[in-house]
Amino acid sequence: MTDSKCEMRRLGSMFIFAAPSGGGKSSIIKRVLGHLDNIQLSVSVTTRQPRDGEVEGKDYYFISEEQFKKLIKDKQLYEYVDSDFGPKYGTPKAPVEELLKQGKDVILDLDYPGVQSLKAIAGDRVKAIALLPPSIRVLKERLVNRGTDADDVIERRMSMAEKRIRESQFYDYVIMNDDLDKAADEAISIIKSTRVERKNICELEELINQIVEDK
Amino acid sequence: MTDSKCEMRRLGSMFIFAAPSGGGKSSIIKRVLGHLDNIQLSVSVTTRQPRDGEVEGKDYYFISEEQFKKLIKDKQLYEYVDSDFGPKYGTPKAPVEELLKQGKDVILDLDYPGVQSLKAIAGDRVKAIALLPPSIRVLKERLVNRGTDADDVIERRMSMAEKRIRESQFYDYVIMNDDLDKAADEAISIIKSTRVERKNICELEELINQIVEDK
Repeated sequence: MTDSKCEMRRLGSMFIFAAPSGGGKSSIIKRVLGHLDNIQLSVSVTTRQPRDGEVEGKDYYFISEEQFKKLIKDKQLYEYVDSDFGPKYGTPKAPVEELLKQGKDVILDLDYPGVQSLKAIAGDRVKAIALLPPSIRVLKERLVNRGTDADDVIERRMSMAEKRIRESQFYDYVIMNDDLDKAADEAISIIKSTRVERKNICELEELINQIVEDK
Repeated sequence: MTDSKCEMRRLGSMFIFAAPSGGGKSSIIKRVLGHLDNIQLSVSVTTRQPRDGEVEGKDYYFISEEQFKKLIKDKQLYEYVDSDFGPKYGTPKAPVEELLKQGKDVILDLDYPGVQSLKAIAGDRVKAIALLPPSIRVLKERLVNRGTDADDVIERRMSMAEKRIRESQFYDYVIMNDDLDKAADEAISIIKSTRVERKNICELEELINQIVEDK
């Protein structure tokens, strides 16, 4: 099998999807994970207790306040939400770095401040993708039709939605999610194309030497 | 139709595919053009005479030596090949700029020096994509099986191939063309994802205002 010689080794990348509530983020991520291999969701750390059915290392890494403080001190979190009240959440570097090194892409679940922190550290290893709803009206209709939220919750979500939508200007990609198939296809194309970016291909010079020498 | 309000206007981009002879460039471009709308090949200018069946404005713009010199003087060519002997070729700016403004993507047929010139002028409006063969051996087999070239032509092409392959290191994307379906799909994903890059979306702030105001 001489073909095995020319296999491309690559470095994984980080992807963040942002959308207001009802903006279709979960559906898009589900499509992406269903369509592509070698991509997975990152697992956050949290100081809160596991809820029923939550699995350590799958839903979250459940850690103590002390462990959380140590991760911050050792600069082992890409970003974190650290309030004096309530549980803390963070994105641990080590497991993500390990996946990237193995050539796996990672989807991170971050809000805009987290995206900014991550971009400052990881630069263009991160691609931030904003999903736009066609209108606030459509967004509200989707939430009402979903029927899972009380009216006051929907109102609260709507008051956040405008902020989220305005933040789209600061993302690397902007996808109009008025058609789930089309939007998911665009999201998948961002990941596929990132995989063939020259900077993500490991040892390209060595690969080229192999190609050229196999006469 | 309130939906027409939220349509995204975008700026086109330039794409260049590079490959050694037999590297599958024509097949990939054919797939790309067959699969996507709003993308077309750029038409070069040349000082040579039209050959049988060649159509002005489709195959080339056929121009005089004087017109060619004037285009250079007026900086109206992205790049050109200007030898004292033989016909001259160049990529005219005006028709490409017009297509980009209309939101159409343009595939340019340039060699590496041309890519460098264009990158210097147009920066990240240009995406340069190198297609790698699995090996020089496979490349030669493809050319022999194609049966259109004499042995000495094949030898000459092979001596150029190594240079072309090494230049891949300087492209934005590198696609391994060992499977035409996969390679074409990757090429298409580069173009699709470029279309949703924030920088290529016109009047995003205005679009966001429309989305937010439609309650």
